[in-house]
Amino acid sequence: MVIIIPGGKDMKIILLTLFLSISSFAVEGLAERAKNVGLKCIPKEQAQLDKLLANKDNPITKAKLDLGKMLYFEPRLSKSGLISCNTCHNLGLGGVDGVSAAIGHKWTANPHHLNSPTVYNSVFNIKQFWDGRSPDLEDQAMGPIQAGPEMAMPKELAVERISAIPGYKEPFQKAFPGQENPITFTNIGKAVAAFERTLVTPSGYDSFLQGEQNALSKGEQKGLETFISKGCTACHNGPGIGGSMMQRFPLIKPYEFANLGDFKGDANGLVKVPVLRNIEETAPYFHNGAVWSLEKAVKIMGETQLGMDLSDVEVEDITIFLKALTGKKPDITYPKLPPSSNQTPKPDSN
Amino acid sequence: MVIIIPGGKDMKIILLTLFLSISSFAVEGLAERAKNVGLKCIPKEQAQLDKLLANKDNPITKAKLDLGKMLYFEPRLSKSGLISCNTCHNLGLGGVDGVSAAIGHKWTANPHHLNSPTVYNSVFNIKQFWDGRSPDLEDQAMGPIQAGPEMAMPKELAVERISAIPGYKEPFQKAFPGQENPITFTNIGKAVAAFERTLVTPSGYDSFLQGEQNALSKGEQKGLETFISKGCTACHNGPGIGGSMMQRFPLIKPYEFANLGDFKGDANGLVKVPVLRNIEETAPYFHNGAVWSLEKAVKIMGETQLGMDLSDVEVEDITIFLKALTGKKPDITYPKLPPSSNQTPKPDSN
Repeated sequence: MVIIIPGGKDMKIILLTLFLSISSFAVEGLAERAKNVGLKCIPKEQAQLDKLLANKDNPITKAKLDLGKMLYFEPRLSKSGLISCNTCHNLGLGGVDGVSAAIGHKWTANPHHLNSPTVYNSVFNIKQFWDGRSPDLEDQAMGPIQAGPEMAMPKELAVERISAIPGYKEPFQKAFPGQENPITFTNIGKAVAAFERTLVTPSGYDSFLQGEQNALSKGEQKGLETFISKGCTACHNGPGIGGSMMQRFPLIKPYEFANLGDFKGDANGLVKVPVLRNIEETAPYFHNGAVWSLEKAVKIMGETQLGMDLSDVEVEDITIFLKALTGKKPDITYPKLPPSSNQTPKPDSN
Repeated sequence: MVIIIPGGKDMKIILLTLFLSISSFAVEGLAERAKNVGLKCIPKEQAQLDKLLANKDNPITKAKLDLGKMLYFEPRLSKSGLISCNTCHNLGLGGVDGVSAAIGHKWTANPHHLNSPTVYNSVFNIKQFWDGRSPDLEDQAMGPIQAGPEMAMPKELAVERISAIPGYKEPFQKAFPGQENPITFTNIGKAVAAFERTLVTPSGYDSFLQGEQNALSKGEQKGLETFISKGCTACHNGPGIGGSMMQRFPLIKPYEFANLGDFKGDANGLVKVPVLRNIEETAPYFHNGAVWSLEKAVKIMGETQLGMDLSDVEVEDITIFLKALTGKKPDITYPKLPPSSNQTPKPDSN
């Protein structure tokens, strides 16, 4: 077959058109390839999103969300009256505390030197906690409230204290209609979890997966290419770009900070793969918060999980892509919590 | 003079009219009397309010407010990275922490067993801190950041850390236009203070002083009557119903919890009269947070300051009035703080 190509101006237009088609095809190809290796966007369509975030045993209602937000910021859920969910999972700081190991009641550091994971997009974790011991956010939310080195609050006292704050009566009745005594520890967990389920943060990355070619810059696209081609998506996939599975860590080569803390994963030595959304905001990294630089964390992941010595350029490319995962956080009006009464059990800082 | 009063239905209408006039006069009288003894409302008119809140050395602008709010909620202003202004002056909890003595860095209680005063309406304090050692909020805001038992942050490190968070550059430039290097410790204090100046909480009490007769219930009016007639307004006056002067405490009879902590006021033994707005939300009471019940606090004030044994009814009346001082808090969107960089000095929990 012979194609006759005209010269001059026409030639330029044809070549330009050809170039644009190819690059558009390449981009479409990248988004397709990303989806083929298991990367998923946060749906734009509300009904689809609702379905993704839902827990059939804990339907999300406006009343439950309002209550859940109050309880999320409620320091009186801690023994001392000073620590709330938001203390370690600060919604202003990417959903974390920004320290290596969580610090809680009486300034106690996490005994296993575990780093607080972000609450943003935590709904995309198939299981909760680093060892995946909790099946969902409803169950998880009840953990740190009771844990001695965190909020140190006996669950009976949590219920007693919240019950003795008169302004909580109506919000609980509205959030759990038809229940004779809705202020229970389980319902506290359910309300907090309902609020947490809504804390998802779409970014340009999601628009890109949905076909908006310019939603990621060329550099970010190159980083996504590298992220896929190096095999990061083997574990970091799904709508959280992580959170969808458990994995051995380290898998291939040793982790140089393995001795910081004594965490070794679940009974099978498996660790939950962390969500990578907003990773730029959630330093320090790894289960023990040993690494402060995102570039270094990427380099280490190459070694420990892929057995690869990623080049500086590859590390930089991947980092540029990871920074594109910083998403739009929901606007949150700081809650006005109801006052304690003379009957409210007092805080105890000991 | 003979007044002929018709009988039957007309009679009832006349008596009703007469009664309404008298009670309306009585109410007007109460609001007038309140103003005569120095009680002042928070102005409804914006220009008047702006004038009341202003500090000519620190003009309030939208950009400064936005920055001030970020810094108010910024835990990286503390050495540990975990404590912000909002930790002890929680905007969701009436502007306080709800514990007897403030607890800060390394879980250290305030060495003088001092209770955190509310940030709401703190603009109405003629001086800041319990001993009035600080002239204004701009100066005050720099104190707790540096105090060892509070945020424990050397001011140089505060500036270094904030300067090394790239996302703060533009907000500081906008808040302090024309300054070559706007990220200074003084400007941190100014921005926080500008935000704090706006945290005023008008209530029905203010509408009542402005002439809305039904803005306080009959019981609340009775309480205000008692509050005035017993002489509480000698110290608790001005727009804060407190904050306008220093006074000896105890003044007449001993304070039964005087030995909790070693605070004895300023060099002259004077203590700043606390603002009473939102007092229902700011237990425990007194400089050393020794008393949890508002009724008991009122009873004690009668003894220590007025040398009076207030009856249960008088205590209840005054308490009902004090609860009417719970005001409308501004809606605050929780700030999204800019991420740290590899250059940001790390948190230090020791």
